[in-house]
This record gives sequence, structure tokens and C-alpha cells, in this order.
Amino acid sequence: MRIDVLTLFPEFFEAFEDFSIVGRAIKESIVEINYTNIRDFSRNKHKKVDDYPYGGGPGMLMRPEPIVRAIESVKDDNSIVYYLSPKGKAYSQAKAMELSKQDHIILLSGHYEGIDQRVIDNYVDEEISIGDYVLTGGEIPAMVVMDSVIRLLDGVLSSSESYLDESHSYGLLEYPQYTRPDDFRGFKVPEVLLSGHHGEIEKWRKAKAIEITAKNRPDLLEERRNK
Amino acid sequence: MRIDVLTLFPEFFEAFEDFSIVGRAIKESIVEINYTNIRDFSRNKHKKVDDYPYGGGPGMLMRPEPIVRAIESVKDDNSIVYYLSPKGKAYSQAKAMELSKQDHIILLSGHYEGIDQRVIDNYVDEEISIGDYVLTGGEIPAMVVMDSVIRLLDGVLSSSESYLDESHSYGLLEYPQYTRPDDFRGFKVPEVLLSGHHGEIEKWRKAKAIEITAKNRPDLLEERRNK
Repeated sequence: MRIDVLTLFPEFFEAFEDFSIVGRAIKESIVEINYTNIRDFSRNKHKKVDDYPYGGGPGMLMRPEPIVRAIESVKDDNSIVYYLSPKGKAYSQAKAMELSKQDHIILLSGHYEGIDQRVIDNYVDEEISIGDYVLTGGEIPAMVVMDSVIRLLDGVLSSSESYLDESHSYGLLEYPQYTRPDDFRGFKVPEVLLSGHHGEIEKWRKAKAIEITAKNRPDLLEERRNK
Repeated sequence: MRIDVLTLFPEFFEAFEDFSIVGRAIKESIVEINYTNIRDFSRNKHKKVDDYPYGGGPGMLMRPEPIVRAIESVKDDNSIVYYLSPKGKAYSQAKAMELSKQDHIILLSGHYEGIDQRVIDNYVDEEISIGDYVLTGGEIPAMVVMDSVIRLLDGVLSSSESYLDESHSYGLLEYPQYTRPDDFRGFKVPEVLLSGHHGEIEKWRKAKAIEITAKNRPDLLEERRNK
């Protein structure tokens, strides 16, 4: 898979290249990531990429030309262009799976108060939002997308690791987990987990998964019921 | 505000320190961010921090001691400890505002397949999730939290920039925005925005905000109706 990130801050991604599973996938040539600085495509003599919004309002917008030229510099016939934006569709594990099946994705990270809508309407395939909170730009969201997608590529995770991603799709939050020591400062591991009785362990984990989902994400239980 | 990040990958955050608004807030001493390597608190001679889960199952868990010692090394009476986790409550702009009012937040980033539940039950104040997708660890989520919280601190954004964060709380996605040139490769800026008629512009923007919210996030319109 090839990923192109279009951004005003390519240097922000330096440490990401070495990061854990992503670093491993790059080293093994499972994924190739390129960063393009949108500013390089500004024909303005000061390399300015933003301007005031038509119709008034606070803040500055990114102008269409540098972004579109940056997209065109990396786009092929089979590329899909995603714009990371607070007004996009909600990103999810299902969407991560969809992206992981593409040959080439282009992740456009905006900054300032947004980008010119004509870019979105005519040069972007999909606008995606990682959550309902305001961030400074699309750089951290691009990392979220890359991390979640790269873990799904063939050969990146071992079979036991990838099992866990699948368990997430089951629609419940994960049950509580415990490791050594069995007594930590007087806090003990639940006895059932030490029992060796797999049927009981399974039952306990399922009950706990429902309990924590009900507590932290009742909306997921609701969704599950409606399926 | 003081932020402490507990992680196995402090080097991952290097570029974040210079990043845009965050870098500015650090330079102006509005926020102080410290990174602590959880591995430094392992008493194991190989600095091992993980072990197998009790009761079986795939993957490795982070052991309780190094994490708890790392928390204790930075915690004061007024600290609040957040664990970034896929099974936490959904992070939102309202939660970002809540965090921005704290004096000291501790962000615990887990790795491997999770952390021992006794840490969460006894040493963590709140478990938060940035979205319904699987990531490699809590590092990118910690950046999401820091970026969204730091922008809300007094003196970080100019008044016109912060206006935009408030407009987000209105419950609709943002209306489309346009900047120069008014004709880009034949794609024109909507005439109403060039009209100078503020009432009409206001009306058009409101209608467009509802339109895009209905298209990309019908759940937000639903929520708004129920308020």
C-alpha cells in the first residue's frame, strides 16, 4: 500500500516513521508513506497558502490552488483522496478496514480554519472526522488513520495480535485483563482467572464485557440490540 | 497547566513540542508538558514491562508496578489521571473543556494489548476513548487530548480563532467556506458570498450547515432535536 500525506507540517511526522508497528511495516515494505508539503505548491512569492474567507468571518482559509496542485502531484488513477476534517463522516474500525483494501490513499491535512470548499467538492473523494472535538489541524487525525489502517495490512500483525482487532468488531468493549503479580499491593486478581476453568473464565469475561460497555458506552449496547 | 504523559515511547512526542499552537503555548509557559518513560520504573533486570494475561488469551499486558510507580512519580494532590483506552468513555469537545480547567492532568498511554485492570480500578480517575477504531497505543490519543485541551487555555488562541471553537459547540457541522480566487479553474464561489448582503450570507450559511450535517452526521441533528 502507498500512502501520501499532504500537509503544511511534514516534519511533524518524523517520529511517526519509527513508531512501533508503523516503523516495522515501513521497514518490511508493506507500506510506503510519502509526505508532501502543500506550501511547495504555492506560486505566491511569499509561499502564502491562506487568505480571508468570502462573505466574512474569523480566521483564514487555505487557498485552493496549492492544495489541488499538491493532490495532482501524487494522484494516480487508483488513488482515493481523503480530507481529514471535523465536518466529515465519523471514522470507525469499519472505515479503517475499507481503507486498508485500497492500493493508494491520499490523506489531506488542512490547517488554519479550513480549506476552500471547491477542493472538497471537486478533488476530494471523502471527508472523514476522527471525533467530535476541535483540533489544530489534520496532522494528528492523519496519524490516527495511518496507524489504524497499517495494523490491518497483511503481514503487519502476528495472528494473535490481529485476533484482538477482530474481537473489537464484536460490538462490546473489552473485558478487564490481569497479569502478574496475582497480588499487587493487596489488590488481587479475580479468582476465576486463576481457576484454569475455561468455561467459567469465558462466562466471566462475557459478563464483564457487557458490564463495562453498559457503564462507559451504553450507545454500543443499544446499537447491538438494534442489529 | 501542567501535563504529564506516561508512555513507553517518549521520543514519539518530540515533534509535537514544536507543533503549531502547542509549540506556542509551551514557549509562552501557558502549558508545561513532561514525558515519563514507564520502562524506567520497571525493577525487572531486562526492564520488561509486560507479561501474559491470567486466564489465557492472545497478546501481552502491561504489568501494574511500573505504571503505578510512574504515576506516583508525578502525581500531586490536585492531579487527575486519565487513561487513553478503547474501552473508555467517548472523548468530546465538552470533555476537552472540562480537562482544560484542571491544574494538572496525567495522561497514561498504554501499549501491548492493554494494562492490568487493577491500575484502572485503583489509580486512574477516568478512562477515555478518542473514537471507535483500534490503534497501536495511547500515544496518538494523548496528542489528540493535548491538542484539543491546549487550544482552550487562556491566551493560546486569538479571540477570532477561539470564536470558531465555540461555533462548533452549536451542534451543527461548519458551513462551506471559500477564499480567493473567486473563479478557480471554472469552479466559482457562490454568488451570495460576494454580494456583501450580510443577512443573506447568514441565511445561506445556516442552511448549508444544516445540509452538510444532515448528509455527514444525521446523528448530530437527532441529538439537537432531542435537546
